[in-house]
Amino acid sequence: MIIVMQPGVAEADLAEAVRHVESLGMKPHVLYGVERTVIAAVGPERDGLKESLEAAPGVAQVLPILAPYKIASREVKKDTSVITAGSLSVGGTKLGVIAGPCSVENEDQIMKAAHGVKAAGATALRGGAFKPRTSPYSFQGLKEEGLKLLAKAREATGLAIVTEVLATEDVGLVADYADVLQIGARNMQNYRLLEAVGKTNRAVLLKRGPSATMEEFLLAAEYVLSGGNSQVMLCERGIRTFESHTRFTLPLATVPYLQTKTHLPIVVDPSHGTGHTYMVPSMTLASIAAGCDGLILEVHHDPAHAASDGYQTLSLTQFADVMQRGRKVAEAVGKTM
Amino acid sequence: MIIVMQPGVAEADLAEAVRHVESLGMKPHVLYGVERTVIAAVGPERDGLKESLEAAPGVAQVLPILAPYKIASREVKKDTSVITAGSLSVGGTKLGVIAGPCSVENEDQIMKAAHGVKAAGATALRGGAFKPRTSPYSFQGLKEEGLKLLAKAREATGLAIVTEVLATEDVGLVADYADVLQIGARNMQNYRLLEAVGKTNRAVLLKRGPSATMEEFLLAAEYVLSGGNSQVMLCERGIRTFESHTRFTLPLATVPYLQTKTHLPIVVDPSHGTGHTYMVPSMTLASIAAGCDGLILEVHHDPAHAASDGYQTLSLTQFADVMQRGRKVAEAVGKTM
Amino acid sequence: MIIVMQPGVAEADLAEAVRHVESLGMKPHVLYGVERTVIAAVGPERDGLKESLEAAPGVAQVLPILAPYKIASREVKKDTSVITAGSLSVGGTKLGVIAGPCSVENEDQIMKAAHGVKAAGATALRGGAFKPRTSPYSFQGLKEEGLKLLAKAREATGLAIVTEVLATEDVGLVADYADVLQIGARNMQNYRLLEAVGKTNRAVLLKRGPSATMEEFLLAAEYVLSGGNSQVMLCERGIRTFESHTRFTLPLATVPYLQTKTHLPIVVDPSHGTGHTYMVPSMTLASIAAGCDGLILEVHHDPAHAASDGYQTLSLTQFADVMQRGRKVAEAVGKTM
Amino acid sequence: MIIVMQPGVAEADLAEAVRHVESLGMKPHVLYGVERTVIAAVGPERDGLKESLEAAPGVAQVLPILAPYKIASREVKKDTSVITAGSLSVGGTKLGVIAGPCSVENEDQIMKAAHGVKAAGATALRGGAFKPRTSPYSFQGLKEEGLKLLAKAREATGLAIVTEVLATEDVGLVADYADVLQIGARNMQNYRLLEAVGKTNRAVLLKRGPSATMEEFLLAAEYVLSGGNSQVMLCERGIRTFESHTRFTLPLATVPYLQTKTHLPIVVDPSHGTGHTYMVPSMTLASIAAGCDGLILEVHHDPAHAASDGYQTLSLTQFADVMQRGRKVAEAVGKTM
Repeated sequence: MIIVMQPGVAEADLAEAVRHVESLGMKPHVLYGVERTVIAAVGPERDGLKESLEAAPGVAQVLPILAPYKIASREVKKDTSVITAGSLSVGGTKLGVIAGPCSVENEDQIMKAAHGVKAAGATALRGGAFKPRTSPYSFQGLKEEGLKLLAKAREATGLAIVTEVLATEDVGLVADYADVLQIGARNMQNYRLLEAVGKTNRAVLLKRGPSATMEEFLLAAEYVLSGGNSQVMLCERGIRTFESHTRFTLPLATVPYLQTKTHLPIVVDPSHGTGHTYMVPSMTLASIAAGCDGLILEVHHDPAHAASDGYQTLSLTQFADVMQRGRKVAEAVGKTM
Repeated sequence: MIIVMQPGVAEADLAEAVRHVESLGMKPHVLYGVERTVIAAVGPERDGLKESLEAAPGVAQVLPILAPYKIASREVKKDTSVITAGSLSVGGTKLGVIAGPCSVENEDQIMKAAHGVKAAGATALRGGAFKPRTSPYSFQGLKEEGLKLLAKAREATGLAIVTEVLATEDVGLVADYADVLQIGARNMQNYRLLEAVGKTNRAVLLKRGPSATMEEFLLAAEYVLSGGNSQVMLCERGIRTFESHTRFTLPLATVPYLQTKTHLPIVVDPSHGTGHTYMVPSMTLASIAAGCDGLILEVHHDPAHAASDGYQTLSLTQFADVMQRGRKVAEAVGKTM
Repeated sequence: MIIVMQPGVAEADLAEAVRHVESLGMKPHVLYGVERTVIAAVGPERDGLKESLEAAPGVAQVLPILAPYKIASREVKKDTSVITAGSLSVGGTKLGVIAGPCSVENEDQIMKAAHGVKAAGATALRGGAFKPRTSPYSFQGLKEEGLKLLAKAREATGLAIVTEVLATEDVGLVADYADVLQIGARNMQNYRLLEAVGKTNRAVLLKRGPSATMEEFLLAAEYVLSGGNSQVMLCERGIRTFESHTRFTLPLATVPYLQTKTHLPIVVDPSHGTGHTYMVPSMTLASIAAGCDGLILEVHHDPAHAASDGYQTLSLTQFADVMQRGRKVAEAVGKTM
Repeated sequence: MIIVMQPGVAEADLAEAVRHVESLGMKPHVLYGVERTVIAAVGPERDGLKESLEAAPGVAQVLPILAPYKIASREVKKDTSVITAGSLSVGGTKLGVIAGPCSVENEDQIMKAAHGVKAAGATALRGGAFKPRTSPYSFQGLKEEGLKLLAKAREATGLAIVTEVLATEDVGLVADYADVLQIGARNMQNYRLLEAVGKTNRAVLLKRGPSATMEEFLLAAEYVLSGGNSQVMLCERGIRTFESHTRFTLPLATVPYLQTKTHLPIVVDPSHGTGHTYMVPSMTLASIAAGCDGLILEVHHDPAHAASDGYQTLSLTQFADVMQRGRKVAEAVGKTM
């Protein structure tokens, strides 16, 4: 950790900062520069250290050197983790493809989706039973009935089920039905929920919050991992920026970045990441080329009449077409799909 | 609602869109323009309508005209609501001032803070017992013990207690001790939690999420209000932007904007909104001048040794000074503090 | 154009707005809704109309329906324009690849770059002679001497030259040497410069400003096009967001978006778009898969000793490797490279 | 400068980095940490150094310690500079107030504005003669005729003239008429223009670009200052963020931030910073309370018929009212207006 002192810092403040560093078990090296004095503190960087040093008198800036996440770090595990949950496998050379409707609406709809996406090559079925909705007046999902329909679809197709869990009190119930527990973007920093899924034996798909930094994203994963659950997939689904021609901005550089920082596999969501059906195919191909380990896509047999998210949902025909084109791109980058 | 069709839209798609509008109980007016055809749909705009129309073939854009929030809207209540909880009152001509440490650390600390902020003119005490922390390895708060210390501080000073609730399972416990339940920025879209506090008889301080739009913010309030709890204060605490010289960017235009849209009173948090102690005084004065109804400020008797957020915390002396200067600005804009 | 009036608008204000619309040559249709009154103004939308209506009393919102750019619009030209400048062609099924150093440093350096990128398959050479630098104390480029070296490199390799022009007074000089005039991101809204290059017969590579909306970007192109120069390539080079692990955020959805809005071809710059050499290869492949028409990449024979931008520059070996992998992805999406 | 090496860095790369630092005239101190090795380079930080070190093998991160701007820095001049240009003075305890229309339209209009704003207490007149417009089809200003009208207004009222200069070729002409040369937000990084105004003896009002960092902003000022012109005022006019209920987000923490970093005085523009007339008064008061040295406001005798920016323009009555309220806030913070 590097502690930069203010210009013309008082000797007493400098001495106090040095004592502070020592009291925290780090070894301080004071470097008197021409214009600034700097303390290089060598040793383990404990959480909260940056914060407490920043509040000390005479300190201008504190620059940590080590990443605050541990279990998620690629420094502790060199190879990408392969997460397997039923028919879904993410992290190997074959991409995992999670597809299905935004919301489970009824048996006919989810069965059509399940059979359709399976035929086109999907390896898991998505579908929301508990829906987080911006407005309290919107459709909130079928809840347990929706979970039962998802289980039926799994029985019929063999596809693993990926579905969102919204609250700690539902974790047990959702885990009874689902193969993968999805933590939505709005809940990325709902730490109790992260702790709760960290105590299950279900794989977790953790979506990035729309204004989360990479460090916050990896620390959210660390909440799950430190609870004992190592089956975490990270999902980039777009960030909030000034751009208004897309619903969110999909930053694919997340893929190469995370590959250097963490061993957790990376899934991309081009549906939420763009918010427009017509953009989904090209951004799906781009995600594959960028090197993602998996995809999650909204697919419905009749998007114009979907209960939610129709404007960013692929029809079964469109999905089949994207899969076919995606396979070629996957091969071009040494993978299969 | 205005439905803009794509250039050269097929007659069949136009007819289908018209039917769709009618089936939803709105009256369509088709306007054939030189270059575009537009359907003006007159009547109540139901939630989900925009979404379903956007997914329809031939539709380019759907422009809602009415706000999706109802109870929060200033159109239903012309005067600013005054929220009262113990010693705290927010929404009248006297500003509410909530001050205290980021975290409750021990009895001595919270008592010093409580007496100190009261002496300087604060009307409520803040202090975190349940702390949402970015890292699982950070101090997570004293929990119920912290709540008990807050209750002691209230007993000693008469100050109302404002403290954060993190999870639905804690709502009852926190409501037993607190006068105001704070929903933190990370939980602004934790809808279950919003529903849970909406069922209590405690006032709620709802913080804006760092990437929330005004519509999302007001719809989050609507979750609380529609649960039956009308005691909601909105809190602007800064948004995430490209700026890195502040922790968040504090957009004070939120104050005049919300004043035209909602009757709920508006509190500003210059501590989180800047992230640097030295900026807090000037941004506090700016918030008052912008017309806010209340302030929430981090204050500690010894910021350099605070367990959290020391870098953005005022000392008791600094707080007293800000209060004194703030009073003058409040008077200049026709208020008291 | 749709004019939404404020709730409870006065009859006089409504009448005045109607007159205003008529005076501008549009036909107003007044729609009295249950809660709001709306004027649908049918006819050509003139520039400035939105602004003047927005300032009128009683008006809540003005929603334009037509795009403000005309010549750039895909509605006036259905096929993607193919821009050709010497060895470079952008817009057909073969991708244009512009590669070379950030700055021209000396003859040896630019010759090594030119021969190296040509051997690997580049179709044009980039290199800065006039450099816009954030600090006045940074290397500002070799200026005319740099242009001469670029011309030598063209002579030796046959590669078209792409180089930036910073100011109207240099347009003639740069046009004497270059095949393509690059307008940098900082100058995207330097309208005089856009007008000046619009009067040349050189192709123009227009880079998106880091906070430009798509509409502003296309209107900047319109400045060049309306000056009589139809040879415009658009270049996405990353936007400024809260993300700090990349220099800019590269939003590839720009590619499918622009393809629906404009006939101008689209080039992507993964070097500036990421700011880190290690991310450039994967984002190059992603750009190709997203459907771009061309690429611009920073390449140097010795990036660690480049005069500028070394941290985001590929070595010749890295570039050759990216080209080889890129060709496979291009084929997978039905193109060549 | 602190150079953080990658984990497990090769000895050869470390040695090379040390040599690199020495070759640049700095003294390297190598600190071998438990997990990372760090080089602390003591001595003057030259521009470009960070860039060249970042591209070196084995280097993970380079952290500069000194600000790259010199003349603008408060470290070289402790007191705020007072800039005086005719009737305008900015930087003392009396706030400078620049007011007037977005564009000069005709003699009657500019005279009404000039007399009106003077009567209400403005200390300078703004008005655009050369207008940078997003669309090539918008009104581009009266050019020299506009400058002549501004000069007439100065003659009639004694108010100093603040007007924008768009291009190097106009600098002489505009300087002949204006007291203050305004550099617009779009041109903040038009370095040739900055150099050109740096060679005049006219005061400069430099507006922040909507996505400029503080460092970029101060380095833009440095371009003017290093040309020999020390009369620079900085102007915060809002940044581009995800917020859509305002035209830009006005970050008033810019004021306390810049006060610690630079001696240049700070002007705030609540008109562009909000984009809505109704928000301008409260944000003007907030700017004063935040401690700004001056204000620039759009004022027109008939905003509904203004040629540009009417939606964010105050009427003369509204301006007089804001001035009156502003004076009280100024007094509350120890200033006059």
